[in-house]
Amino acid sequence: MFEIRNPQYKDRIREYLSRQYFMKHVGIELTVIKPGHVEAELNIEQTHLQQFGRIHGGVIATIADIAAGFAAYTLVPEEFHVVTGEIKISYFRPGKGHRLKAVGKVIKPGKSMSFCEAEIWSLEGGKEILIGKASTSMVNIPIVEG
Amino acid sequence: MFEIRNPQYKDRIREYLSRQYFMKHVGIELTVIKPGHVEAELNIEQTHLQQFGRIHGGVIATIADIAAGFAAYTLVPEEFHVVTGEIKISYFRPGKGHRLKAVGKVIKPGKSMSFCEAEIWSLEGGKEILIGKASTSMVNIPIVEG
Amino acid sequence: MFEIRNPQYKDRIREYLSRQYFMKHVGIELTVIKPGHVEAELNIEQTHLQQFGRIHGGVIATIADIAAGFAAYTLVPEEFHVVTGEIKISYFRPGKGHRLKAVGKVIKPGKSMSFCEAEIWSLEGGKEILIGKASTSMVNIPIVEG
Amino acid sequence: MFEIRNPQYKDRIREYLSRQYFMKHVGIELTVIKPGHVEAELNIEQTHLQQFGRIHGGVIATIADIAAGFAAYTLVPEEFHVVTGEIKISYFRPGKGHRLKAVGKVIKPGKSMSFCEAEIWSLEGGKEILIGKASTSMVNIPIVEG
Repeated sequence: MFEIRNPQYKDRIREYLSRQYFMKHVGIELTVIKPGHVEAELNIEQTHLQQFGRIHGGVIATIADIAAGFAAYTLVPEEFHVVTGEIKISYFRPGKGHRLKAVGKVIKPGKSMSFCEAEIWSLEGGKEILIGKASTSMVNIPIVEG
Repeated sequence: MFEIRNPQYKDRIREYLSRQYFMKHVGIELTVIKPGHVEAELNIEQTHLQQFGRIHGGVIATIADIAAGFAAYTLVPEEFHVVTGEIKISYFRPGKGHRLKAVGKVIKPGKSMSFCEAEIWSLEGGKEILIGKASTSMVNIPIVEG
Repeated sequence: MFEIRNPQYKDRIREYLSRQYFMKHVGIELTVIKPGHVEAELNIEQTHLQQFGRIHGGVIATIADIAAGFAAYTLVPEEFHVVTGEIKISYFRPGKGHRLKAVGKVIKPGKSMSFCEAEIWSLEGGKEILIGKASTSMVNIPIVEG
Repeated sequence: MFEIRNPQYKDRIREYLSRQYFMKHVGIELTVIKPGHVEAELNIEQTHLQQFGRIHGGVIATIADIAAGFAAYTLVPEEFHVVTGEIKISYFRPGKGHRLKAVGKVIKPGKSMSFCEAEIWSLEGGKEILIGKASTSMVNIPIVEG
């Protein structure tokens, strides 16, 4: 199991959500927040689609980044922030369906960075289908007081 | 230079734009379309930010995917579509500023897939700053008539 | 479970091994070959190290590519070859120890490409430690008879 | 241009080469070492090939990692080491020919990590052909005295 270095990790994440403007603009919500594991969900509407009626790759990249990034946040000390160093998203299948879910997990926490993954699932006709997967380096940045 | 296999590539891309709902939702526009090279731009507003007032990683991933993907589209024959197989985005610096630009380029076109890159620049106080770079495999999919 | 499209997949892989010169040069052997799952192992000697006595990143990349690539080979029809389109390797911890193992798995098989992963484990003092992970696009190439 | 934080960067790299056992085992040599730019070369022999007579992906990953990693080393202060955090290699074309060259460059140096790239060229019949490209996060690790 993971070591918790900030017992208030849930409050911290919830406080950030109010200022996560792009996340709100896309319509993404967090549904699970636990140590090293965060899930994000989204109701798919026309606004999320590309020219062939599939879920846009940018929507999938965004929800994957959010799930993996907040998963990293659950494990860092209070005096650190987390930024995405790099993220790779592999697209397995075209995203259809009416709901999207990303399951973000910390694979290897660390002092200066964490390796995380996110699986992206679409809910299509009652079935959950794995449509992509992300692998990412989340970097810990010390908070400098002004 | 690149071989043009669909002389109507510009018309094709422009036609797609009308149904690129997520691209419109984010506010991204194409500003340059030429063989193997597409640029996309975006005016940054509060809606594009994350909790610390920086440009959200999902915005950067989205504009990079769009610039690289349409760059690939300029070089495929009419009977093929292009989908993102995978994309890796590296974030060099926090994105500030009021305008974002992605320059997408085909590095190696191919029959079944193209390797593309996108540089992401932010315009901050009159200077263009390289804030990230993407590397991606764009896959050619034959169009099947219904 | 996976669909087997070439029942002779094991014979095919074994035949390739005799001409896998770089794999032999490094000293890597396959220890498990089953549908969508291949394991490769290596006894660590001085020849595999970098300047600080750790296992060289190139050794880890090589064994990951081999395990993931042969995992993809177990699922392609006889008339296709498999080549690595791209591979990303994340290095979680410095590799020490006397033996290295890569576990390659197909995550999403496909007609034109397969998404695969490989976990890399080192055996250090009786314990298996996850030192890295790879994510890769393996591309299917039709064999053209001469 | 880049800021030099360790004027002895060439001596440091040369000293490491004597203990770069895997690099020697593969036969790779450094041919250019300058700030933010390192080139590595290799004479291709049978030992570098895979089952179809092409240069093995592991050879290409190794030479790319070395060129990019030593490019990062040219720019870090003396009291830091450099380790590969992650590397993605895209394979554009099968590697043939008798000589391989990797050109490693720092794209964005930083205090805690550097983003680097490496282009991989093969010399085939008098022509240099771009056969692949790598993008990588090189992490700076403070040297702790024992």
